[in-house]
Amino acid sequence: MTSFENRLARRTRNMGASAIREILKVVSRPGMISLAGGIPAPESFPMEVVRELTAAVLDKFGPAAFQYDLTEGFRPLREALVDYLADKGIAATAEHILIASGSQGVLDCLGKILISPGDQVALEAPTYLGALQAFNPYEPAYVQIGTDDQGMLPDALADALSRQPVKFIYLVPTFQNPTGRTLPMKRRRAIADIIQRFDTLLVEDDPYGDLRYRGTSVPPIKTLAPDHVVYISTLSKVFAPGLRMGFCLAPDLIRQWLVLAKQGVDLHTSTFNQALASEYLTGGHLKRHLPRIIALYRPRQQALLDAMKRFFPDAFTWTAPDGGMFVWVEGPDGMDMEAVNQKAVNRNTAFVPGTFFFARPGDGRHTMRLNYTMADEATLTRAVGILGEVLECAVTKMCSRGRTRSIDGD
Amino acid sequence: MTSFENRLARRTRNMGASAIREILKVVSRPGMISLAGGIPAPESFPMEVVRELTAAVLDKFGPAAFQYDLTEGFRPLREALVDYLADKGIAATAEHILIASGSQGVLDCLGKILISPGDQVALEAPTYLGALQAFNPYEPAYVQIGTDDQGMLPDALADALSRQPVKFIYLVPTFQNPTGRTLPMKRRRAIADIIQRFDTLLVEDDPYGDLRYRGTSVPPIKTLAPDHVVYISTLSKVFAPGLRMGFCLAPDLIRQWLVLAKQGVDLHTSTFNQALASEYLTGGHLKRHLPRIIALYRPRQQALLDAMKRFFPDAFTWTAPDGGMFVWVEGPDGMDMEAVNQKAVNRNTAFVPGTFFFARPGDGRHTMRLNYTMADEATLTRAVGILGEVLECAVTKMCSRGRTRSIDGD
Repeated sequence: MTSFENRLARRTRNMGASAIREILKVVSRPGMISLAGGIPAPESFPMEVVRELTAAVLDKFGPAAFQYDLTEGFRPLREALVDYLADKGIAATAEHILIASGSQGVLDCLGKILISPGDQVALEAPTYLGALQAFNPYEPAYVQIGTDDQGMLPDALADALSRQPVKFIYLVPTFQNPTGRTLPMKRRRAIADIIQRFDTLLVEDDPYGDLRYRGTSVPPIKTLAPDHVVYISTLSKVFAPGLRMGFCLAPDLIRQWLVLAKQGVDLHTSTFNQALASEYLTGGHLKRHLPRIIALYRPRQQALLDAMKRFFPDAFTWTAPDGGMFVWVEGPDGMDMEAVNQKAVNRNTAFVPGTFFFARPGDGRHTMRLNYTMADEATLTRAVGILGEVLECAVTKMCSRGRTRSIDGD
Repeated sequence: MTSFENRLARRTRNMGASAIREILKVVSRPGMISLAGGIPAPESFPMEVVRELTAAVLDKFGPAAFQYDLTEGFRPLREALVDYLADKGIAATAEHILIASGSQGVLDCLGKILISPGDQVALEAPTYLGALQAFNPYEPAYVQIGTDDQGMLPDALADALSRQPVKFIYLVPTFQNPTGRTLPMKRRRAIADIIQRFDTLLVEDDPYGDLRYRGTSVPPIKTLAPDHVVYISTLSKVFAPGLRMGFCLAPDLIRQWLVLAKQGVDLHTSTFNQALASEYLTGGHLKRHLPRIIALYRPRQQALLDAMKRFFPDAFTWTAPDGGMFVWVEGPDGMDMEAVNQKAVNRNTAFVPGTFFFARPGDGRHTMRLNYTMADEATLTRAVGILGEVLECAVTKMCSRGRTRSIDGD
């Protein structure tokens, strides 16, 4: 029996790290309370308008919605996105927008056209796991740029850029995954200055910017250094992730190569789904629906934060983001959150150990990411209560499975 | 103004060849009669059931059709494809099927997990252009295997495999793009024997197998050497290409790596579109609709072939396929079909010069591919009449633009 193991490309060894996949599989077990996922609540989808949207697409576009289309994207969606981007202060024309199969599709094609084996890519520590999964097959080396409570440190970035050639910088500046942190305006300006000064490329990934629960929005870095930024976003968090609808706005040469790369990857993104997305935007549905998504998530986040304050041991600190889907927790040095997660899973509660979000193996073992979009307030409170117990056990090394501290019914 | 030209990865230079893109852009000009495309007729789409399908998806799956889903694919579609594949003699279980974003998505991921720079990939001469576009970024070397009127020559394949290590063989055995040729059963057996003897991997791409206009179907090579074949197909030609719905059945190890690669590329294929496809299959729509597609294309192909017989100069030969979407034409040696196409385009008629379908630059300059799915019989006849004139001019070198040979109204 043939295994074909020896047929694999050299780059394939870089795609291995599937520990996170195993964790997410465990998490889908019945009865599990999962703070591990990174997915929107199904009740956040605009199901009440979907029939209307499909009817509008069939009436308006007919068979064209089912035909092959340009790699660049379905024209009506690209036009609709011009207005969407203008609301964020980003000036674009339809010709400059490239539609992709999720923002993941942009990240893959960016890796493909930019990364030669061994090339340096600068990113936050911690960073978005999906970006690592997109870039890894192209065999980059990573430069981890230091962060604090306000996100990437501009001085650390400038220092890194002056020390080595960097192909591009990858950044999630708003409600970052996994930390929830948002880069303040002053740092955005500093980073915009740095990328212009070093004439380098910044990939600004902005999937969560619309999910703001308090405070005022901060403009994308794209608005500050348009010629040096690839701006990426998605409708996954404000419409429906299953439609795989991402897009980007890139400097001309980069966009042109992205189109050629994408042609080899999937020819183009689903025309029908692009037509649905264009109707969602042009029909004003996004603007009507977004407040409902926010009204769903804001109290969930609050419940999580309240419960953490109540149940988490003193030795832990965490972020309190103004939006997005995640809270980031740091425990005392030396704590092994993978082991903690195992104990939590035994009590039907799961999270993602933070170490998976670092490019450098072994970093962040004492950290964890909590998601609050997939459970209601009472469930979140119960889950945090259990986590609090497991964490306290881990801290005091005095674990006793039978210990009970009432957390239900509070 | 920054160009970022120096930022591109080494592999990116392999993605260039966009002459074909330019040709296809010209072809979309208003008034152009195009035999150049490779796309299904919009009137072949089952528009009469689409409303029913979307309603069924919403009723049956609700928000789950809009949520993130497994990279491997939407379970109900994978189950539906088990029966679809069984009708072709292919034994599969849902666990072994991987859904992709078009068959292009499979080709890209195969290239990614298998091809290290410089690795040899064996393929037909000519071969499917989209496969070259998928593989090229991974920097393979190509071994062109000779073909004749019945497709790939088994002896030439065995010879190539004994001369050098080949990562995999890529083959479209039924109604091939661009030639329309079908590998007969005897050759399928011979190739199945060869890949088992050399313990190598065959990628069998079968997008057109269902579009048979006459004769009896020939089983996929997958049925003859299941452990050595990655079988790829798509619903693009029998449902709707805009949904980007492809799938594959691969040996276990290959499938597992394909899943990891695909996760980095787009996380998964559109859940909603997969749900639509599963309803199309399980509702019996494909079986009812396919005869209509065939009834649409068969007379178009006949009209094209009849007109070629009538209008093409003696020095030309062509295939008369039992199905699919293409006829392949060979002119006399020394003829430059790119120049001919320019002349044809000036008369609002376009085709694809065959040279684009060869891995080795410069091969096949005297060949052309004609598509017959996108125009009705009268239009095809008129277009072939014009092509016949242009070709005759090219052969006799006695071109005179004003020459008229009545072809309309026949």
